[in-house]
Amino acid sequence: MPLIRLSVPAAMPMSKARALADSVHQSLVETCAVPPDDCFQLIAHFAPEAMVLHPTFPDVQRTPEASVIEILFIEGRSPAQKNALFQRITERAGEAGFVADDLLIGLSENSAADWCAGQGRAFAG
Amino acid sequence: MPLIRLSVPAAMPMSKARALADSVHQSLVETCAVPPDDCFQLIAHFAPEAMVLHPTFPDVQRTPEASVIEILFIEGRSPAQKNALFQRITERAGEAGFVADDLLIGLSENSAADWCAGQGRAFAG
Amino acid sequence: MPLIRLSVPAAMPMSKARALADSVHQSLVETCAVPPDDCFQLIAHFAPEAMVLHPTFPDVQRTPEASVIEILFIEGRSPAQKNALFQRITERAGEAGFVADDLLIGLSENSAADWCAGQGRAFAG
Repeated sequence: MPLIRLSVPAAMPMSKARALADSVHQSLVETCAVPPDDCFQLIAHFAPEAMVLHPTFPDVQRTPEASVIEILFIEGRSPAQKNALFQRITERAGEAGFVADDLLIGLSENSAADWCAGQGRAFAG
Repeated sequence: MPLIRLSVPAAMPMSKARALADSVHQSLVETCAVPPDDCFQLIAHFAPEAMVLHPTFPDVQRTPEASVIEILFIEGRSPAQKNALFQRITERAGEAGFVADDLLIGLSENSAADWCAGQGRAFAG
Repeated sequence: MPLIRLSVPAAMPMSKARALADSVHQSLVETCAVPPDDCFQLIAHFAPEAMVLHPTFPDVQRTPEASVIEILFIEGRSPAQKNALFQRITERAGEAGFVADDLLIGLSENSAADWCAGQGRAFAG
């Protein structure tokens, strides 16, 4: 049950934001054993003055397309798996026209008991 | 100190979104010992292309009113209590016109030391 | 890699919201050893009916400028450090015209392995 939340610049066309969301989802499928249909995404646009992303920290070059990708998913992925996820997102988003340094990704974890996907009961896996 | 964040479709009237928020809050009071006045809610509307919720995963039937309910609250609730929360939200939201499968609920936890509710100091309980 | 998310009332001028964001960032630098350039902020405005913050819970007096400050950062800060952060945010935001009781602050934690700040790999510190 990953929930993907994208925060993108106001100037980014929705089609490009959607391509980024698709890249994130496909990468979760490929590196984190997420089922292909397990796809939940929210996209929000931010005006320039409402979105501050440092231009170079820690050692990157961000462009006006810099975006924030937040993923909330069930605990259990190893650091190596998370690194593979970051790498795969970067590759796939690259094919959609994003430069690597524009992708700020933050993961948060909960447990299977913390999700209800319908029917009024906890998600069991 | 639960913080409730609702992400609802752009077409949903605010009155219905507010009814959902109220259902979530009342359910927290009833199942998770949240004080009745401990009510903090943020509601955001999303255009259809900015909100992707898979129509059937894992085994549900979502309608155009499908919404995301995120709750950040203090750790300590048991899986049984979380399940009771999911069930109660579904019942109460059902009374407000929502179908069970349209409620995607994700819980995240922090600790009492992670909240400041004013006065510049940590919330103590 | 703190990510700061501010949720402020629709009536709040962006300049004041930005002053609040700056207060939060400076306080993270001063109390939590965050590098001065490690600055990532998202600001969203909410209409009155989309933002419910109880007027007095737990023992405060909120005004129409009450706002929510969410910080996602790497685990490891002590309760004392978090308390110092809350106090410093309150002091600095006070200089920007905010009253203490209007600042609802919630912290969430992840790990260094959960952040990618560019270049397709995990942030290492």
